[in-house]
Amino acid sequence: MVNLKVVAFILSVLLMIEGAFMLMSAPLSLAYGDLDTIPILLAALGTTLIGFILWLIFRKCNKTIGKREGYIIVSLGWIVFSLFGAIPFIVSGQGIPNYTDAFFETISGFTTTGASVLKDIESMSHGLLFWRSLTQWLGGMGIIVLSLVILPVLGIGGMQLFVAEVPGPVPDKLHPRINETAKRLWGIYVIFTLAEVILLWLGGMTLFDAVNHSFTTLATGGYSTRQSSIIDFSPYIQYVITLFMIIAGINFSLSYFAMHLRFNRVWKNEEFRSYLSFIGVFTLVVTLILVFNNREQGLEKSFRDSIFQVVSIMTTTGFATANYIKWASPAIVILVVLMFFGGSAGSTGGSIKIIRVILILKNGFLELKRLIHPNAIVPVRIDREAVHPTVITNVLAFVTVYIMVFVIGVIVISFQGYDLQSSIGAVAATLGNIGPGVGAVGPMENYAHFSVFGKWFLSFLMLIGRLELFTVLVLFSRSFWKN
Amino acid sequence: MVNLKVVAFILSVLLMIEGAFMLMSAPLSLAYGDLDTIPILLAALGTTLIGFILWLIFRKCNKTIGKREGYIIVSLGWIVFSLFGAIPFIVSGQGIPNYTDAFFETISGFTTTGASVLKDIESMSHGLLFWRSLTQWLGGMGIIVLSLVILPVLGIGGMQLFVAEVPGPVPDKLHPRINETAKRLWGIYVIFTLAEVILLWLGGMTLFDAVNHSFTTLATGGYSTRQSSIIDFSPYIQYVITLFMIIAGINFSLSYFAMHLRFNRVWKNEEFRSYLSFIGVFTLVVTLILVFNNREQGLEKSFRDSIFQVVSIMTTTGFATANYIKWASPAIVILVVLMFFGGSAGSTGGSIKIIRVILILKNGFLELKRLIHPNAIVPVRIDREAVHPTVITNVLAFVTVYIMVFVIGVIVISFQGYDLQSSIGAVAATLGNIGPGVGAVGPMENYAHFSVFGKWFLSFLMLIGRLELFTVLVLFSRSFWKN
Repeated sequence: MVNLKVVAFILSVLLMIEGAFMLMSAPLSLAYGDLDTIPILLAALGTTLIGFILWLIFRKCNKTIGKREGYIIVSLGWIVFSLFGAIPFIVSGQGIPNYTDAFFETISGFTTTGASVLKDIESMSHGLLFWRSLTQWLGGMGIIVLSLVILPVLGIGGMQLFVAEVPGPVPDKLHPRINETAKRLWGIYVIFTLAEVILLWLGGMTLFDAVNHSFTTLATGGYSTRQSSIIDFSPYIQYVITLFMIIAGINFSLSYFAMHLRFNRVWKNEEFRSYLSFIGVFTLVVTLILVFNNREQGLEKSFRDSIFQVVSIMTTTGFATANYIKWASPAIVILVVLMFFGGSAGSTGGSIKIIRVILILKNGFLELKRLIHPNAIVPVRIDREAVHPTVITNVLAFVTVYIMVFVIGVIVISFQGYDLQSSIGAVAATLGNIGPGVGAVGPMENYAHFSVFGKWFLSFLMLIGRLELFTVLVLFSRSFWKN
Repeated sequence: MVNLKVVAFILSVLLMIEGAFMLMSAPLSLAYGDLDTIPILLAALGTTLIGFILWLIFRKCNKTIGKREGYIIVSLGWIVFSLFGAIPFIVSGQGIPNYTDAFFETISGFTTTGASVLKDIESMSHGLLFWRSLTQWLGGMGIIVLSLVILPVLGIGGMQLFVAEVPGPVPDKLHPRINETAKRLWGIYVIFTLAEVILLWLGGMTLFDAVNHSFTTLATGGYSTRQSSIIDFSPYIQYVITLFMIIAGINFSLSYFAMHLRFNRVWKNEEFRSYLSFIGVFTLVVTLILVFNNREQGLEKSFRDSIFQVVSIMTTTGFATANYIKWASPAIVILVVLMFFGGSAGSTGGSIKIIRVILILKNGFLELKRLIHPNAIVPVRIDREAVHPTVITNVLAFVTVYIMVFVIGVIVISFQGYDLQSSIGAVAATLGNIGPGVGAVGPMENYAHFSVFGKWFLSFLMLIGRLELFTVLVLFSRSFWKN
C-alpha cells in the first residue's frame, strides 16, 4: 500500500514553505505603492494556514518514504505548488483575471519554462512581478531540494525525492548525506544569483530589475519584467546575462568544485566540454548566418545576438534580444534543434540534456563498429570510463519517449488549429521548459491565444518536461498502483 | 584486406542485368512512335557492354564475399545502378537535359522514393516513362535479391548481401537456401503486380498506364505517368491502388504464407496487426478532420482521400489523390508523423518500419515498469515472445541515428533557403523514401527547384534511407577499413 498520509504530510510542509515565500512579495507592492499588498498578504497567509492545518492532521503519520511515495510527492508537490502559487495573480486585481491563465503563468514559472500569457507585463504590480520571478528561482534548483535544506528532518526519504526531482541520468552527490548535498547546491545557487544582481545593478539596471532577472537567469527560466524581454537593455547587460545563462546550464556540482579550486575535476568532465563546444560551434554558425544575411548590422551585434539566442535556447532559458523568427531559415532551424539539447545534467536547464545528447551520438557511431565486429564488446565511454549498458538503454528509452511525447503533443496542438511550425514551437518550448518557440509562439508573442484546453495541456507538458517524464508518467502506469 | 575484385565482379554482373532491363524500354518507344528508340537501345547496349568488359576482367577472381565485401557491394551496387540508369534520360532527347536531374530521378526511382524533378511528365516518351517505373519495380524488391534469383551462383555470399539489402531488424528466410528465398519473394511480387495490372486495366486504364502504376504501387515507389498523380483517375482505380499499396506495405513473407493458406501464421504476426490498426485509426481520424472541415465534400470522398493519403504516406509510396498540403493543420501534421512510420519489415516500404515503431513504443511503456521494479527483468514481447535485449538496443540505436540524420538533413536543407516546414518535408520524404513531402515539396510540387548540391544531398539521403542507414554509413567508419 502506498503511504498517502506521509504524502499529505510532506505536502503540508511544502505549502507552509510556499506561503512563507509568497509573503515576501507583499512588502514589495507596499514599497512601490501598488494596491495589492493586502490581497497578496492574504493569499500567502491562507496558503500557510492550509499547510498548517494539514500538518496538524498528518504530523503523527508513519514517516517512511519509499520509491513510490517519492514519485507521488514530487509530482504532486509541483502541482500543489502551482495550484496555490496562482492565487496571488488572481486576487491581486492587477494580475491575471482567470484561473487557467494564472495557473499557466505559475507552472510556467515553477518549471522554469517562461512561457507567458501576459500581453502587458509592465502593468503588473511589483509584488506580482517579484513573485513571478521567484517561482522560477525556487523551481530552478528544485522545491524538494530546497525543502531538504530547510527541513533536514525530511532527510529520511530524501534520496528518493532527490533522485525523482534532480535532472540527469545519474545524479551525483556532493556529500553522502543528501541534505548536505542540497545545502551546498543551494549555496552556490545563492552566490551566483547575488553575483549577477551586483553585475546587473552596476550596469545600470534598477535593483528591482536586477534581482528579478538574476532569479530568472540562474533558474534558466526566462521571465523578464519587460514585454520586450532583454532587447532594450545595454550590450553590457546582455553579455552579463549571457554569461550567467551559461553558468546556469552547467552542472552545479562542477561549479562547486570550481569554487573550491578543483579545476581539474571540472575540465575532465566531458559533458562540460561538449556543452561549451556546442555553444561555441553553434554561435559561430549562427553569427555567420546573421552576418551573411544582414550585412548592415555589424559584426559585434550579430555575434551578441547569436551567442545570446544560442545560449538562451540551448540552456532552455528563453530570454530574447532579437525576434529570431525573422532570421534567415537556417538560423531558425538551428534554434529549433537546440531546443532539444538543454543544459547539463544537474543544472537548472531543461529538455533532453547534453549528457544524453552525447551519449546517443556516441552510441550511434559505435553501432557502426558493432556492425563490423558483432562479437566485440564496444562500450560507450564518458570521461574515459565505460558507461554501463543499462544506463545506455535507459537514456535511449528516455530520448525515444521524449520524442514520442513531443510528437503526440504536436498532433494535439495542431488540433487547436495551429500550423506545423507553431505546433512544433509550442510543444518543444513547453516540454523542453524553454518558453518562447517559433511561429505563433515566437519570442515577441505569447501563449494567451491558446484555448483553455490548450493551456492545461501545455501546462502538463511543462510539468513532465521539468520532472524528466518518468517521475510523472510512472503515476499513470498500472503496475505502479499494484502491490 | 577487402576483396575489391569480387566487388568489381558482382558489379559487372549487375550492370549486365541492368542493361537487359533497360533494353525492354526501347520497343515501347518504337511501338508508340516516340523518337528515342535508338538512343535508349544504345544506352542499354553500352551499359551491358561495360558490364561485359568488367566481367571478362574480373571473372577469375576469388569469389569469397565476407561481411565487408557485402556492405560495399550493396552500397556501390545501388550507386552504379543509378549512375547508369540515368543515361537513357540524358540521351533520349525527350528526357532530362542535365545529368544531376537525371541521376536524381533515377536514384529516386531505384530507392522507390518517387521524388521527381519533372514538371511535365506527359511530354516524356513511353520508353522513358516505362524505364522510370521499372527502376522503382526493380528497386522495390531489391536489385541484389533479384540478382540472387537470376544468378544462383551468387548464392555463395548471398546471405551477406541479402541481410545488407532487405529491410527490417531481423530478416526472415522463407527457405534455408537464400536464392530459394529470393525466388519465392520475387514470385509473389510478380503475381501481385500482374493482379493489379488486370484490375486497373478492367477499371479503364490503358494497359501502358496499368503496368506503370502497378510497378510503382507494388514497389511503394509512387511514380505516376501523370503530373497530377492519381487525382484524375476514377474512385475504383483509387481504391484498387489503395488496396495494393496496403499489400506492398506488408511483409512479403506473410503474403507468401497467405497464398499457401497458412492464415494463422499471418494473423498471429503482431507487426501485421499493428500495421492494419495504424491504417485504420489514422484513416478514421483524418476522415473526421476532412468531414469536419469541408462539409460539402461528402463522406465517401473524404474517406477515400483519407485512406488513400494515409496509406500512401505510411507505406512510403507517395501517390496523391489530393493536394493534402491544403488540408486542415492536424491532417497535415498526422501525415508528417506517418512519414516516419513506414511499411512492415520485409515489405517494399521504407522509413523506420512498423516493427521498430512498436518496439520503441512498447519499450517506452515498459521503462515505467522497470522504474518501479528495477531488479526485475522486463522484456519487450513481440508475437508473445521476449525480444532479445540486443535487438532492442539495435532498434533504439537505429531510431536515434535515423532522427540524427533527419535533423542534420533538415539543417543542411535549410541552408539552401528553405523554411522549417519545407526542410522537414523534403528530408522526411527523401530519407523515408516517400517522395512528396510538405511545404515546397508538396504532392503537386516537385524537386526541380533544389540546387545541384541539394539534389545530390537528397539523393544521398534516399540511398541511405533505402539501405537502412548502417549498410552505407558503415563504409564511412574508420574501423571498417582497418584490418
